[in-house]
Amino acid sequence: MRAPTDQELLDLAQRVASACRERRIRLGTAESCTGGLVGHVITEVPGSSDYFSGAVVTYANEMKIALADVPAAVLEAHGAVSAQVARAMADGARRRLGVDVAVAVTGVAGPEGGSAAKQVGLTYVAIADAAGDDVRRFVWDSDRTGNKRLSAAAALELVVERLTGPSS
Amino acid sequence: MRAPTDQELLDLAQRVASACRERRIRLGTAESCTGGLVGHVITEVPGSSDYFSGAVVTYANEMKIALADVPAAVLEAHGAVSAQVARAMADGARRRLGVDVAVAVTGVAGPEGGSAAKQVGLTYVAIADAAGDDVRRFVWDSDRTGNKRLSAAAALELVVERLTGPSS
Repeated sequence: MRAPTDQELLDLAQRVASACRERRIRLGTAESCTGGLVGHVITEVPGSSDYFSGAVVTYANEMKIALADVPAAVLEAHGAVSAQVARAMADGARRRLGVDVAVAVTGVAGPEGGSAAKQVGLTYVAIADAAGDDVRRFVWDSDRTGNKRLSAAAALELVVERLTGPSS
Repeated sequence: MRAPTDQELLDLAQRVASACRERRIRLGTAESCTGGLVGHVITEVPGSSDYFSGAVVTYANEMKIALADVPAAVLEAHGAVSAQVARAMADGARRRLGVDVAVAVTGVAGPEGGSAAKQVGLTYVAIADAAGDDVRRFVWDSDRTGNKRLSAAAALELVVERLTGPSS
């Protein structure tokens, strides 16, 4: 998989901007492996403060608990890089940030941190809104920087899809 | 002022990594105009989870209050882009994230949002540790993307300087 360019990420952020503006949605993010990249890309769009409230970057596990209300038992049972933690991050960030929609990313960016069960590149992207939540699983095969960019693109795409429907 | 390249930002993040590792410092960020860019750059370094706990991206004013404990009265009196709010963000994030050192950025990235009193490019970068806090004022003259990158570089430089002394 080729990692997205700066321009491709910006194009996605513009689509997020249109989708949020049309529906008067306030958006937030909860980020682990991306470290703030999703928020950075969203805020490359001038006027993004109209729909972007902010983010919690929960890099350490304690931060997932403290800033996104991920239950310690869920972290313990499934590990930080899991569908369950991604969903919990999105749900928790939505409440904490007081936003309509929150998107969350947790993954193993590499080159370290992989294991037999959780290989480098494994990433979960989750979204939460008033209707509930959803999660996607990916396994990226780029380097650390590329895996972060692929994760950020997947998060932005999930926001667009959730707001506009899968066919758009 | 020329905005830093990806490589220049990564070099700064490597210096932050060395400074934090040598002193066993845990680091966090509180970001407004950078939208998560500082955390993103810090986490470009493999193994950054050893010293980087996370970030609060307090893009909306309500988030500065909710996530970084900036007093509403300080926001009201001085505005979001002020030395006082930058200091409060750093102090609040340090407590909230439970880190040794927190660096905060608030500014007018542009092209919108400027005023006679707070021109586009005006940026405050603050740092807080157990010894207290410090703040710097900048006026960048790049575009939105460049101003964000200049702000991120200033934040990383302030961390290195605070940890290693001004002469390093």
